[in-house]
Amino acid sequence: QLLIQDSSDREFSRTIFLVISAALVFYMQAGFAMLCAGAVRKKNVQNTMLKNLLDACGASIAFFAFGYAFAYGDGSNPNSFIGTTNFLLLDVDDYAFFLFQYAFSAASATIVAGTLAERCQMAAYLCYSLMLAGLVYPVVVHAIWSGHGFLSAFSADPFLGTGCLDFAGGGVVHCTGGTTALFATMILGPRRGRFHDEQGRKLDKPKEFPGHSIALQMLGTMTLWFGWYGFNAGSALITNSPEIHNLMAVAAVNTTLSGGMAGLMSLFANYYALERATGEPVFDLVVAMNGSLSGLVAITSGCGMVEPWAAVIIGALAGLLYLFGTNWLIKMRLDDAVDAIPVHMFNGLFGLVAVGLFASPRKLNLAYGKEMPHYGLFYSWYHGHSDAHLLAAQIVGGLFVVGWVLVTMLPFFIWLDWRGWFRSDPLEEIVGLDTSYHGGLILSSEEDVNPEYISR
Amino acid sequence: QLLIQDSSDREFSRTIFLVISAALVFYMQAGFAMLCAGAVRKKNVQNTMLKNLLDACGASIAFFAFGYAFAYGDGSNPNSFIGTTNFLLLDVDDYAFFLFQYAFSAASATIVAGTLAERCQMAAYLCYSLMLAGLVYPVVVHAIWSGHGFLSAFSADPFLGTGCLDFAGGGVVHCTGGTTALFATMILGPRRGRFHDEQGRKLDKPKEFPGHSIALQMLGTMTLWFGWYGFNAGSALITNSPEIHNLMAVAAVNTTLSGGMAGLMSLFANYYALERATGEPVFDLVVAMNGSLSGLVAITSGCGMVEPWAAVIIGALAGLLYLFGTNWLIKMRLDDAVDAIPVHMFNGLFGLVAVGLFASPRKLNLAYGKEMPHYGLFYSWYHGHSDAHLLAAQIVGGLFVVGWVLVTMLPFFIWLDWRGWFRSDPLEEIVGLDTSYHGGLILSSEEDVNPEYISR
Amino acid sequence: QLLIQDSSDREFSRTIFLVISAALVFYMQAGFAMLCAGAVRKKNVQNTMLKNLLDACGASIAFFAFGYAFAYGDGSNPNSFIGTTNFLLLDVDDYAFFLFQYAFSAASATIVAGTLAERCQMAAYLCYSLMLAGLVYPVVVHAIWSGHGFLSAFSADPFLGTGCLDFAGGGVVHCTGGTTALFATMILGPRRGRFHDEQGRKLDKPKEFPGHSIALQMLGTMTLWFGWYGFNAGSALITNSPEIHNLMAVAAVNTTLSGGMAGLMSLFANYYALERATGEPVFDLVVAMNGSLSGLVAITSGCGMVEPWAAVIIGALAGLLYLFGTNWLIKMRLDDAVDAIPVHMFNGLFGLVAVGLFASPRKLNLAYGKEMPHYGLFYSWYHGHSDAHLLAAQIVGGLFVVGWVLVTMLPFFIWLDWRGWFRSDPLEEIVGLDTSYHGGLILSSEEDVNPEYISR
Repeated sequence: QLLIQDSSDREFSRTIFLVISAALVFYMQAGFAMLCAGAVRKKNVQNTMLKNLLDACGASIAFFAFGYAFAYGDGSNPNSFIGTTNFLLLDVDDYAFFLFQYAFSAASATIVAGTLAERCQMAAYLCYSLMLAGLVYPVVVHAIWSGHGFLSAFSADPFLGTGCLDFAGGGVVHCTGGTTALFATMILGPRRGRFHDEQGRKLDKPKEFPGHSIALQMLGTMTLWFGWYGFNAGSALITNSPEIHNLMAVAAVNTTLSGGMAGLMSLFANYYALERATGEPVFDLVVAMNGSLSGLVAITSGCGMVEPWAAVIIGALAGLLYLFGTNWLIKMRLDDAVDAIPVHMFNGLFGLVAVGLFASPRKLNLAYGKEMPHYGLFYSWYHGHSDAHLLAAQIVGGLFVVGWVLVTMLPFFIWLDWRGWFRSDPLEEIVGLDTSYHGGLILSSEEDVNPEYISR
Repeated sequence: QLLIQDSSDREFSRTIFLVISAALVFYMQAGFAMLCAGAVRKKNVQNTMLKNLLDACGASIAFFAFGYAFAYGDGSNPNSFIGTTNFLLLDVDDYAFFLFQYAFSAASATIVAGTLAERCQMAAYLCYSLMLAGLVYPVVVHAIWSGHGFLSAFSADPFLGTGCLDFAGGGVVHCTGGTTALFATMILGPRRGRFHDEQGRKLDKPKEFPGHSIALQMLGTMTLWFGWYGFNAGSALITNSPEIHNLMAVAAVNTTLSGGMAGLMSLFANYYALERATGEPVFDLVVAMNGSLSGLVAITSGCGMVEPWAAVIIGALAGLLYLFGTNWLIKMRLDDAVDAIPVHMFNGLFGLVAVGLFASPRKLNLAYGKEMPHYGLFYSWYHGHSDAHLLAAQIVGGLFVVGWVLVTMLPFFIWLDWRGWFRSDPLEEIVGLDTSYHGGLILSSEEDVNPEYISR
Repeated sequence: QLLIQDSSDREFSRTIFLVISAALVFYMQAGFAMLCAGAVRKKNVQNTMLKNLLDACGASIAFFAFGYAFAYGDGSNPNSFIGTTNFLLLDVDDYAFFLFQYAFSAASATIVAGTLAERCQMAAYLCYSLMLAGLVYPVVVHAIWSGHGFLSAFSADPFLGTGCLDFAGGGVVHCTGGTTALFATMILGPRRGRFHDEQGRKLDKPKEFPGHSIALQMLGTMTLWFGWYGFNAGSALITNSPEIHNLMAVAAVNTTLSGGMAGLMSLFANYYALERATGEPVFDLVVAMNGSLSGLVAITSGCGMVEPWAAVIIGALAGLLYLFGTNWLIKMRLDDAVDAIPVHMFNGLFGLVAVGLFASPRKLNLAYGKEMPHYGLFYSWYHGHSDAHLLAAQIVGGLFVVGWVLVTMLPFFIWLDWRGWFRSDPLEEIVGLDTSYHGGLILSSEEDVNPEYISR
C-alpha cells in the first residue's frame, strides 16, 4: 500500500509538470512567430504572424477532433499504421498527455510556415497546414511513439529488436516539419528576385532579403530555446523511467550543451570560412542563432540517451551541418526564408542517426527503465563487437519520415500548384502579402506626429 | 499517519507549482504591455508602457498593504462585504496564495490601461489604478471567492444553494477590469480624430489608428495565452479537489480549445462578413488575435467545470461575440484602443453565464470535490428537469460585478473629469503623451548613422 | 522506511522544479538581450545581441568544461579557494543542480555586455567573457556557496561564526558582474560624443543616446522580472530547509515587493528631483524600469531571510540608490549604456549589507533549517544587544567580491587596452559595430516596398 501512495504522489507531480511543460512547448509558438517576424520583410509581417497564430489555433481543434485519435487512438483493435478511436477526446483520461501532444503537433506545423513566407497563398497554407497537423504528422507519431506503431520501441515486438528511438521528437516533429518545408519550397519556387533578376536572368550572387528586425529574431531564438526545456526535458515525463526526475535533468543538460556548442561552432566556422573565401570575415548573428537552433534540433532525439560529452560533439556537428545545409540550399536555388530546412530537416535526420552512434547503455537504461538490447555503435565498437541494430533502426526511422512526407505532401503540393492555388501572383508578392491579403500594410504611425511639435 | 505524510507531500508540490503559476500570471503583464505597445501609435508607446509597469509595481504594494486584507482578511469576525484583518500580510502563512492573488489583481488593473491609451492624464491613471486594484477589485474577490462572501460557493449557506461559480476569474478579474474600461471610455471620450474631424464634424467612417507594431501585438497575444495556463490551470491548485492534478489538466485543455476555436471563428466570420458587405474580404490578424483572447476570457470562468466539447462551443460563441462587440462599440462611438471591452467585459460576462449552461456534473464533482446540488441548465434539461439555480446565480454574479463597478468607478470617473484631471489637453494628445509627460519621444536613432558610411 | 519514501518523493518534485527554475533563469538571457537591444542605437543592435547569445552558448561549454569544477569540484581533498575535480561533469550526479548553476554563470557574464555596448571589440569581449564565466565567477561561487569556501555559511567552521549569507546571489552573481562592468568602462572610456564633442571639449550636459526601442526595453524588464522567480524562489530548492516549498513562497513574495517598491520609489523620487531642479518634471520610464530591476537585485541576497515589510524597505532604498548611482556615474563621466553598474553592482552590494541589517531569526531558521547563531543588526538591537557578526561577514563578503574582481579583471582590461585590443576604432564606432563586425547594418526593409503600390 505504501508503494501505491508513493506512485500516486509522483503521478500528482508528474501531471502538474506535464501541464507546465506543455505550456512551455506552446510558448515556442511565440518563438517561431518572432523568428519569422524578424526574418521577413516588413511588407509580409502580418501575413507571417497570422500563419503562426492559425497553426496554434487550427492544430488545437484538428488535434482534438481527429489528430490525437489518429496518433494514439488504438482502442481494442489496434493496427500498426493509424489510430481509429478516441476522436473528440472521447474516453481519454490523460488530458495532460493530450495537451503535451497537441503542443508538439502545433510546433510541427509551424516549422513550415517560415520557409514559405512571403510568397504562399493563404488558402494553400490553410489546406496544407490542416493536412500536415491532422493527418501526416499523427501517422508519424503513431508509427514511432504509440504502443502499436511498426517502428515503435514500445510495441510488443519492436523493429530490429529495438525500434526507432526518438526521445523527444527530433525525427517525429522536426524532421516531419522540415521535410514538408523542403518539398513545399521545391514546388513553390524562390521569392521573386532572390536568384533571378527582373528579366529572369540568373544572378551571380543570390540577393539577400534582410529581415525587418534582428532583435525580434533574437527574441525568437531565445524563446525557442526556453521552450525547448519543456520539449526535451518535459518528454521525460511520458516515459516509464523509474527516475523521471533525473532523466529530465539529463535531457535538459544535454539540450543546453548541444545548443551552446552548435551556436559557437557555426559562428566561428562561418567566420573562418569567410576569412578563407573573401578575406573579410564577419561574425554573423543569424548564423549563430540558426546554429544554436540546429544544435537543439539535433539533440532532440537523443537528449535522454547520450552522455554530456556526446551532446557536445553532436552540437558541434550540428553547427557544421547547418552551414553546409544552408549553402547547399542556395546552390540548389531552393529558397528558405528562415533556413528551416537545414535547421529542422537536416539536423532532425542527423539527430536520429546520432542516437544510433552515441546512445549509451547507462542512459538508455535510465530512459527506458530496462536493459535495452542494442545501443549506440560507438559503445558496441568499444566493447569489441559491432552491433548496428539500433543505428539501422534509426536510419529506417529517418527514411520512413522522409518517405511518408514524400508520398503524401509532395503530390499534394504539386496538385495545389497545378491548380494555381499555391503561389501568390507576382504583383501581390511585390506589394507584399500584407497589402494583398490583409487590407494594407500596417504602417508605423510615426507619420502622425507633426515634426514641428517635437522639440527634441 | 500515512495519509498525513501523503498530504504533506502533495502540499509540497502544490505550493511549488503555485509559485510557478503566479510567475506565469505575472508574465501576463509583459503580454499586456506588448499588446498595448503594438496597438498604440509610436508617440504614445512610452506612456502606455509606463502604465503597465506601474500596474505591476503599484498593485504589489497596494495588495500587500490592504488589498489582500480586503479580499481575504476575514479573521474571527467576518462579514459578507469586505475583509478587515491581515493588513501588511500580518498573520498570513500561505505566501504562495498571496502571490497568486497579487498577480490576479495586477492583471485586473492592467486590462483598463489599454482602453484609455493615448489620451488619459498620468495623475488620473494613478488614482483610478490604485482605487481599482486596492478597493474595487478586492471587494469583488471577497464576494465571490472568499469563505464568507455573499455570492461565494465556499460560504456556509451559498446563494441559491450554489453560489456564483467562477473557477479562474472570468467574472472576478476580466469582467471587473473590462467594465471599468467601459465606464472610463464613456467619460473620457474617444481619441481626437477617431470619430470626428478637426472641425468636430462626424466622420462617415471612423478613422483607424494602426498600431506601431503588429509583431509586438502578436507577441503580446502569445505571451498572454502562455500566461493563461498559469491563470486557469493554476487556479486548480487553490481548490479543494482531491484530484488537483487532473483538474489542472482539464482546465488547461479547455483553455486551449476555447482560445483556438475563438481565434478561428472570429477570423473566418469576419472574412465572410466583409465578403458580404464589401466584396473585398481580408484575413484580419488583429481580429484573430483579439478573437483568441476572447475565447481565453470566456473559458476562464468555466475551464475546470465544462467538458472539452463545451469549451469548443464556448470558444466559437466568444469569437462571434467579440465581432459583434467591437462593431457595437464603434457604432456607439466608444473608443477602445485595444478592444479590451469586448474581449474582457463582454466575454467575461458571457463566460459566467456559460457556466450556468454548460457546467457538467462530472467536472463539477472533480473541481469542488463533492456532489454539487445544481449544474448547467443543458444537463438538467437533458435529464428532464429544468434546474436554473446555477444559471441564475451566475447571472446575479455578473450583474453584481457590473453594478459594483457602476456605483464605485463611474462616479469617480465623472468627478475626475469634472475637475479636469482625466483627459489630456488637446495639444498634448496631438504631439503624443510621450512628449508631454515623459520629456520627449524616444526617437529611433537611425538618424545617428551617417548614410555615407554605410556601404550596403 | 516511510520517511525514506517521503524524502524520495520530495526529491522527485524538487529536481523537476529545479529544471524548470533553471529554464526560467535561462530565459533571463532573453530579458538581458531585449533590454540591451532596446537601449542601444540601431547601428549596434546586432553586435549587442550576438554578445548576449555568445554568453549563453559560451558559458554552457565553459561551465561544463571547467567552471563547475572550479566552483563545486571539491572532491576528497578540498581547499578553500577553488575546486579541482569534476571537470567535464565527470562523477557529477546532480545534473539539475549543474544546470541551475550554469544559468547563473551565464547571467553573471551577460550583465557586463550591456555596459560596454557600442564600443568594445568582439575579440576583447570573447576573452573577458570566457575569463569571467570560466574563472573569476566560479572562484566567487566557491568562496561563498560551496561547502569549503572561506566565506561560506556551509563550511564546517564558518567565517565569524556565520559566514556570508547570500541566498540567491545578489553578491555572487550581480555584484560580480556589475563590478566587472565598472572596471571595464573605466578602462574602455565613454562612447564617442557622450561627454565630449567632436573636438574633445567637455560638454556641459552629457549627450543622451536614446535606445532604438523603448518597447523592447520594457519587454526585457518584464522578462527579467519573470525569470527572477526562478532565480530567487528557485534558489530555495538547493537549500537544506525542511520547508523548501514555504521558503520558496517567501522568496517569491519578497522579490515581488522589493521590485515593485523600488520601481515606484525611483519613478517618483526622480519626478520630484526634476521638479525641484528644473521645474519640468517628467515620469521617466527608463528610470522606473531600472529602478525595479534595482529592487530585484537588492532583494536577491536576502529574499529568503527577511520579512515582507523589510523587503519593502529594501526596495525603497534600492530605488533611491539607483538614482544616486546613475547620477554619480554621469558625474564621474563613466559611461554605462544600460546602467548595469548602479543596478547590479551598487544594489548587489547594498543587498548583501541589507541582510546584515534585516535578516530575521524566524526566516533564517526557515531558510537554513537550523537555529542560526547571528542575525540582522536591527533584530539584535531590538533584543537589547548589538550583534554585528552577520553584518561584518556580509561587508567582508562584498569587499571580497569587489577586491577579487579588482585584482583579476582590472589588470586584464588594462592589458587588453594597452595592446589596443579593447576599444573599437573611432570610425567603426561612428558607423556602428553592426557594419564593422557583422557585414552591414540590417536595414529595415520598408524601402523594398514601392510606395506607389500601397493604396493606403
